[in-house]
Amino acid sequence: MTETLIKVDLTQSAYDNDMVHNRWHPDIPIVAWTKPGDDFIIETYDWTGGFIKNNDDASDVRDIDLTIVHFLSGPIGVEGAEPGDLLVVEILDIGAKPDSNWGFNGFFSKNNGGGFLTEHFPSAQKSIWDFEGMFTKSRHIPGVRFPGLIHPGLIGCLPDPKLLKTWNDREIPFVEAHKDRVPPVGTVPFAPTAHMGRLSGEGRDKAAAEAARTVPPREHGGNCDIKDLSRGSKVYFPVYVPGGGLSMGDLHFSQGDGEITFCGAIEMAGWLHLKVDVIKDGMSKYGIKNPIFKPSVITPKYDDYLIFEGISVDEAGQQHYLDVHVAYRQACLNAIEYLKKFGYSGAQAYSILGTAPVQGHISGVVDIPNACATLWLPTKIFEFDINPSAAGPTKFLDGSIDMPLAPDL
Amino acid sequence: MTETLIKVDLTQSAYDNDMVHNRWHPDIPIVAWTKPGDDFIIETYDWTGGFIKNNDDASDVRDIDLTIVHFLSGPIGVEGAEPGDLLVVEILDIGAKPDSNWGFNGFFSKNNGGGFLTEHFPSAQKSIWDFEGMFTKSRHIPGVRFPGLIHPGLIGCLPDPKLLKTWNDREIPFVEAHKDRVPPVGTVPFAPTAHMGRLSGEGRDKAAAEAARTVPPREHGGNCDIKDLSRGSKVYFPVYVPGGGLSMGDLHFSQGDGEITFCGAIEMAGWLHLKVDVIKDGMSKYGIKNPIFKPSVITPKYDDYLIFEGISVDEAGQQHYLDVHVAYRQACLNAIEYLKKFGYSGAQAYSILGTAPVQGHISGVVDIPNACATLWLPTKIFEFDINPSAAGPTKFLDGSIDMPLAPDL
Amino acid sequence: MTETLIKVDLTQSAYDNDMVHNRWHPDIPIVAWTKPGDDFIIETYDWTGGFIKNNDDASDVRDIDLTIVHFLSGPIGVEGAEPGDLLVVEILDIGAKPDSNWGFNGFFSKNNGGGFLTEHFPSAQKSIWDFEGMFTKSRHIPGVRFPGLIHPGLIGCLPDPKLLKTWNDREIPFVEAHKDRVPPVGTVPFAPTAHMGRLSGEGRDKAAAEAARTVPPREHGGNCDIKDLSRGSKVYFPVYVPGGGLSMGDLHFSQGDGEITFCGAIEMAGWLHLKVDVIKDGMSKYGIKNPIFKPSVITPKYDDYLIFEGISVDEAGQQHYLDVHVAYRQACLNAIEYLKKFGYSGAQAYSILGTAPVQGHISGVVDIPNACATLWLPTKIFEFDINPSAAGPTKFLDGSIDMPLAPDL
Amino acid sequence: MTETLIKVDLTQSAYDNDMVHNRWHPDIPIVAWTKPGDDFIIETYDWTGGFIKNNDDASDVRDIDLTIVHFLSGPIGVEGAEPGDLLVVEILDIGAKPDSNWGFNGFFSKNNGGGFLTEHFPSAQKSIWDFEGMFTKSRHIPGVRFPGLIHPGLIGCLPDPKLLKTWNDREIPFVEAHKDRVPPVGTVPFAPTAHMGRLSGEGRDKAAAEAARTVPPREHGGNCDIKDLSRGSKVYFPVYVPGGGLSMGDLHFSQGDGEITFCGAIEMAGWLHLKVDVIKDGMSKYGIKNPIFKPSVITPKYDDYLIFEGISVDEAGQQHYLDVHVAYRQACLNAIEYLKKFGYSGAQAYSILGTAPVQGHISGVVDIPNACATLWLPTKIFEFDINPSAAGPTKFLDGSIDMPLAPDL
Repeated sequence: MTETLIKVDLTQSAYDNDMVHNRWHPDIPIVAWTKPGDDFIIETYDWTGGFIKNNDDASDVRDIDLTIVHFLSGPIGVEGAEPGDLLVVEILDIGAKPDSNWGFNGFFSKNNGGGFLTEHFPSAQKSIWDFEGMFTKSRHIPGVRFPGLIHPGLIGCLPDPKLLKTWNDREIPFVEAHKDRVPPVGTVPFAPTAHMGRLSGEGRDKAAAEAARTVPPREHGGNCDIKDLSRGSKVYFPVYVPGGGLSMGDLHFSQGDGEITFCGAIEMAGWLHLKVDVIKDGMSKYGIKNPIFKPSVITPKYDDYLIFEGISVDEAGQQHYLDVHVAYRQACLNAIEYLKKFGYSGAQAYSILGTAPVQGHISGVVDIPNACATLWLPTKIFEFDINPSAAGPTKFLDGSIDMPLAPDL
Repeated sequence: MTETLIKVDLTQSAYDNDMVHNRWHPDIPIVAWTKPGDDFIIETYDWTGGFIKNNDDASDVRDIDLTIVHFLSGPIGVEGAEPGDLLVVEILDIGAKPDSNWGFNGFFSKNNGGGFLTEHFPSAQKSIWDFEGMFTKSRHIPGVRFPGLIHPGLIGCLPDPKLLKTWNDREIPFVEAHKDRVPPVGTVPFAPTAHMGRLSGEGRDKAAAEAARTVPPREHGGNCDIKDLSRGSKVYFPVYVPGGGLSMGDLHFSQGDGEITFCGAIEMAGWLHLKVDVIKDGMSKYGIKNPIFKPSVITPKYDDYLIFEGISVDEAGQQHYLDVHVAYRQACLNAIEYLKKFGYSGAQAYSILGTAPVQGHISGVVDIPNACATLWLPTKIFEFDINPSAAGPTKFLDGSIDMPLAPDL
Repeated sequence: MTETLIKVDLTQSAYDNDMVHNRWHPDIPIVAWTKPGDDFIIETYDWTGGFIKNNDDASDVRDIDLTIVHFLSGPIGVEGAEPGDLLVVEILDIGAKPDSNWGFNGFFSKNNGGGFLTEHFPSAQKSIWDFEGMFTKSRHIPGVRFPGLIHPGLIGCLPDPKLLKTWNDREIPFVEAHKDRVPPVGTVPFAPTAHMGRLSGEGRDKAAAEAARTVPPREHGGNCDIKDLSRGSKVYFPVYVPGGGLSMGDLHFSQGDGEITFCGAIEMAGWLHLKVDVIKDGMSKYGIKNPIFKPSVITPKYDDYLIFEGISVDEAGQQHYLDVHVAYRQACLNAIEYLKKFGYSGAQAYSILGTAPVQGHISGVVDIPNACATLWLPTKIFEFDINPSAAGPTKFLDGSIDMPLAPDL
Repeated sequence: MTETLIKVDLTQSAYDNDMVHNRWHPDIPIVAWTKPGDDFIIETYDWTGGFIKNNDDASDVRDIDLTIVHFLSGPIGVEGAEPGDLLVVEILDIGAKPDSNWGFNGFFSKNNGGGFLTEHFPSAQKSIWDFEGMFTKSRHIPGVRFPGLIHPGLIGCLPDPKLLKTWNDREIPFVEAHKDRVPPVGTVPFAPTAHMGRLSGEGRDKAAAEAARTVPPREHGGNCDIKDLSRGSKVYFPVYVPGGGLSMGDLHFSQGDGEITFCGAIEMAGWLHLKVDVIKDGMSKYGIKNPIFKPSVITPKYDDYLIFEGISVDEAGQQHYLDVHVAYRQACLNAIEYLKKFGYSGAQAYSILGTAPVQGHISGVVDIPNACATLWLPTKIFEFDINPSAAGPTKFLDGSIDMPLAPDL
C-alpha cells in the first residue's frame, strides 16, 4: 500500500499537528522526505482547519478569524532537489476523507473578508454540499448536481529568504497605502495565529513575525486556486530551498474559474496521492518564473455551455480601461440575473458560479477602452433546461429554499 | 442557392460600397431585409478594408490610419424584430473569399495604436498566414500550423439614440481625462473618415460627428473579439431599433483569447452564412444586458495544453490589486520566454499567442492582492515537441526567419 | 487560388467525363499529376452519377442499375510514389458543390441491392437532406438536425495486377457459391457498364471484363465508408503502381458507423481539397497491409449519447457465435423501437441511424457465444429530449410526415 | 458514511461468502435490500475469486478451472421494483480495494478457454498491472501508461424462469452441436462448481443444475464487458423478478473495446458506489429489450488516435460475408504488426489492445462482401511517439522484457 507521509485527524486542532503550517517561511522545517520517482499520500485539513461546520447557520462564516488560514500539510522534501530546479508533481488521485463526505461554500461578510461581489452580497452566507461518490449537490441550492473536478487550491514550494523579502517589500507597503479600505487590499505578517510547523522558541517567533501569509498566489504558485490542477494533471514548480519543501492544502471538490465566492470553492478536508520528480536546473532551461502545468485527461467533459459576456463598464456605468476584473464581474452579474429568471435567489446563483465547473475566459483585452470577459456556464449541471427559447424561462424553483445568512452583529 | 444579401469586391474601396459602414449610429439605413427563419450570406472586407497587404513589409501596419476601421457589412433588418427583443443569429458557416486565401497578424507601433505588450514590442511588425483548406501556417513563423476557428471579431445590432448617448457620455470624458496617454485610452467620434453607409448629406454629417467608433465591445456586443463565435455557434443579441440592424465584419481565421496582438487575430476578408430568428421581448424575459451565446459543436478539439500562470505583479515588480489584465500579461510574457528557448524570436512567440487557439482563463480573482490568470497553449499546433523534459529544450529554429519590422519614421 | 485538378459538371453524364471511372484496374490511365507537398482540389459526382433526384419519389432508388456505381474522380499520380510506399493524404477541406446543396439517403429494395435491415425494410425508400451551411435536416424526417462530418466514402490507390487477381480469385468463386442469394453476397466484374476512364478500344474492353467492382472495401482502402475520414484527417495509403493512382468519390455529408442504410449515408456531389506526401518504403517500414489514418481535430463534438446494446442472438431467437454483425443489427433494431416511441416511423428511425453521427462499437467479442455491440446515438441531434424518464416518452411527431416508398413493380 | 451492503474479504474463499454467487438463476435469494434514491457500496472479488496471482508465472492462467467464474456480489433488491420496470443504476464511483492495488491481463491457452486471437497466441500468458492512483502500468509491458476507465465487466438483474429457459433452450443445443470445437463455442450449466449464494440443500442442487453460466452477455446485460460503464455512467436494466436482484462483479481497471484478450481486461477486486432508481413499466414505455445506458462525463479524453482498418477477409485470404468479427480481428492483427516495429513482442502488443482504452468501431457493414472495422489506438498512452513519419519507426524496446508464458503441459 502507498505510504501516507502526513496524516491529519479532523477531531484534533490543526495547531496541534506539527506536520501542518499556515505561513510561508524558509525556516519551516521539512517534515518528511521522499525521492524522485516516489509516490505517496498526503492528508490535509480543509483550509480553515475545521472551523466551518456542516449545519444551516452561517455565523461561522461571519465570525471566522481569517488570520488562521490556510492550514497546509508539509513541507515535503525531495532528495536532490536544489534551488533552480523544477519539481515535477503529478497528481495521481485526490479525494475527500471518508469520514468527511461534504464541503462548504460561502460569502464572507464585507466587514470580514468580503469577496468578488461583496458590494452585492455584503452578508455572510453559506451552502453545504454533500458528496455522492464523484458527484455533489447542496441541500441549500436545489436543481444542480455535478461531478467533482477535485484539486488543491493551494500548493507550492517554500520561498528562500530573498523571495520572501521580495513579497514583503511589495505587499506590506501596498496594504499600508490602502489601510482604510474595507475589505482590505491584502494581508500582512501576523505572528499571533501563525502555525510554523516544527519551528519553536525564538526561531519560531522571529519567523512568524515575518512569514508571508498564504492568501495570494505568488511566484511559487501558492494559493492559485486553479480549478484544473485536478487528478491527472502535472505541475512544474520552481524550487528555492534545498529539498523543495512542497506544501499543500485548501482542497476543493469543485470550483468555477475565479473562485469568485472566496469562501471559497467547495472546501473540504481530504487527501492527495502524488508522484514527484525533478528537472535539474529547469528554471533557467525553460525560462520559468511561475509554475507551469499540464491539464488532466480525466477532466469532466462539458461541451454545451451558455456563455455570458461582460465589458469593463462597472455597475454604475463608469468606464474602466481594459479592466478584465470589472468585465468578468459584469459577466457574472449577467449570469446571476439570468439564473434568477428560473427561480434561484441571487445568492444561490452566485454560489453556483463559485462552485460549478464554469469557465472564465479573457476574451478581449485590446479593444480600448473595454475589456471583454466571458463566463461559460455548463448547461448540463442543471436538472432542468436553462437554454433560452421563444417561450421564455420557466420558474423551476419556488423560493422556499435558500442559503443561510448571518447578518453582521 | 442561398442568397447573398451583401457582396463586397475586394478590388473596390470599401468607402464605395454603400452596404458597408465603419461607425455605429441609429440613423444608418438598413440595406437589406430578411425574415425570421431565413438563411443568407454576407460578404465582408477585412477590418482595414484591404489596407494591409500580403507582402514582407510591415510599413502598412505602421502607417495605417486607424480612424478608418472597422468596415462592417450591414445593417441587415429582420422583419418583426423590435426593441427589447433578442435577435437569434446562428452561424451556419463562415470562410475566406476564394480569391483571398490569406490573412495577416501584426503589432501596431506604440505611437499608432499600440497593444497588449506594446512596452515590449513597440515597433510595427507583421506576419502573413496562408490558408490551406481549414488549416493555416505562416512563412514568417515556422513550425506551427493549426485549423481555423473562424469567427467574426465584430458583430452586433445598431444602438438606439439613448444607448449611443450612454456610450458617448462615458467614453468621451474618459478619453479627454487621459488625452496625453500613448497609446490613447479610447477612441472618440471622428467625422472625416466615417463611412455612414447609405446616409448622405447633412444627415450623414450630423450622424458622423456623433457616431460611435467601432473599436470597443459594448452592451450590444460589437467588437467582442470572442474567438468562439465560430461556425455552429448561436448568439442572442439585444435589439434596440426596429428590424435590429445587424452588422458584422472583422473576420478572423483564428485568434487566441484576448486578441493580444491587436492587429489583430489572423485578419481576413470573407463571408458568413447566417440564419436568424427572434425571441419576442427576450431582453426582459431573460434579464439580458449583453449578448449571450452558445458555442459550436464543430470547434477544433485540443486536449493537450501547456499552461502558464501569471499574477498581478507587473514587470517592474509592482503590486496591483486583483488586476487580471496585469496577471494575463505576465502569463503571456512567461509563455513567450518559454517559446524563445525553442528558437522563436519574442515577436514570433507573441504572434503565436495572438493567432493560435490559445485560451486565457481568469483562474483566481479573490486572493488579495493577486489575481491569477492562466494561458493555455495547445501543444499540438507545433510540429515539434514543446513539453518540458529532463533533457531540456531543443532549438528547432535557427533564427534565420523572423517577422518583418517597420521602425517608426 | 488552389488548382482544381479534376472538374465535374453535374449536368453532364459521368460517362462523358474521362477523368472519372467506376472500376478498379491497374491499366486505368492516370489523368493528372501532382508532387509531394502539393495541395489541390478534386471535384466528384455523387456515387450514382446523379441518378437519384431531389424529389419525393423513391422509384429512382428502386430502379437504379447498381452496376454503374461508384463514379470516382481520378486516378491522380504523385511524382515519385512507387509500389511499397505509403501515400499520405491530408484532407484539408471538403464540401458540397454550391449548386447542389442537398443529399439523399435511402434503402434499396431487397430485390435490388438490399441492405443491413432489408428483412425489416424490404422496399425502396428515400429521404432528402438539405444543407444549411455546416448543418443538414430532412423534410422527410422532422425533429433532427446536425452538422456534417463530411467525408469520402470511397478513396484509395489503383491495385497492381497481382492484387487485382487476389480480389477476383477470392470474390468471384464466393459469389458463384451463393449465386441464388437475394440480395447477392457480392459483385463481380461486369463490362457493359464499366467506365474505364481514358482507356479505350481493346485495352478498355479487356480491362473492363476483369476490373474489380468498387463496392467492397479492400486492402487498398476503397469503399471503406469510414465516417471519420473527414476534413482534417490524414490517411496513409499503400501504393501498388507507379504514381499511386489515387481515386475518390462517394462523398457523404454525414453517416453513422456502419452506413447501415446502404443507399447510403447522406450522398452528395462535391469537392475535396487535398494535400499529398510520400513515405518511401512505408509499407514494410510500418508493416502496413490496409490503410491507417489519424482522425481530425475538427470533428463535431457530441458527449451526450443514449447507448443501445445488442447481442448475437438474432430476431428469431437463434444463437450465433460471437457474430458482431448480428449483435449490431440487434442494437440498431433496439434503437429503432425506442425512437418509434417518440413518434418516428421505423423507416425514419432507420434513416436517422444511417445518417447521423452515431457510433457503432464492438464492445465484446470473446464472451462465448455472444458478441456484444453498442450503438451510440447522440442526444443533441434531436430538437426534443429523447432521454428516458419516469414520465415516459412524449410523442413529438404525429406521423403525418414519412419517407417516400416505392413498392416493387 | 455511505453504507457498504456487501463486503468481501480477499483472504477468504469466495465460496465462503454467501453474498456472492457465480451463476444466474431466479431462485438465488436477494441478500440485501435498498430503496429508490438510495446510494450504497458493494465490494467484489475479481472475476476468478483470487485465483490469478500477482507474480511472474502464467501457470495460474493456464490451469484455472473456468467453471468457477464469475464471482458476483448480490443479488441486491430494490423496494418496489417489479417485472417490466427499468432499474436505473448510476455508478457514482468505483475503485480498487486499497489492499489490492493491482490487476491482471492474460491470454488463455487454446486448450482452456482460448480467445479472440487464440490461433496466433495459443499459450497461456499474463501481464500484471500496478495502479498508481488513477493510472496504471505493467512491469511486463514497458512504455505504456494510462488512466483507468474503471467499470464492472458484468452487471445485471436476475432472470425469471421464462428467460432462463430461453437461454438454456438456445445455448445448450448450440454447444451440443459444436461439442468438439476447441475452444468450445459456449458454456452450459455445471453444478459442481456453482456458487448459488444463500441457496442450500435440494433447492440449491436443483437450481445449480439448470442455472445459466455467467460468461455471455444476454438480454439482461450480464457480462457485456462494455468499457464505458464507468464512474458517472447511468444504466437502465430490465427487471424480471420482484426487487430486481441486481448483481455485479468482474471489475476492470481498464479495457479496450472487445475485451479481446478474454483473460480479460485489467481484472481486479474492488468496490462500486451505486445509486438506484426505478422507472415503472419502463420496458414497454420505451420498448426496451436489452439495457440502455448513458456514458459518463468523467471519461478520460483522448483525441489523438492512430486508426487501423480491417476487412472481412481472414488471415488465409478467405472471403467472409460482412463478418465484423473477422474484420475486427484483421484490424487488431494490423495494429499488432505495427507495434512490433517499435520493439514490442506480439504478445505485448496484443495485451495493450486488450487493456488500454482503444475503441473498436463497426465502420461499414453493407459493402458486400466486406465488412470494415476500425481499431482506434490512443497515441498518448505511449511514452514515445508511435506516429508514422518519413524517417520510419524507432525501436524503443530492446526485447529484454516480455510477458510470462506457461506452455501447455
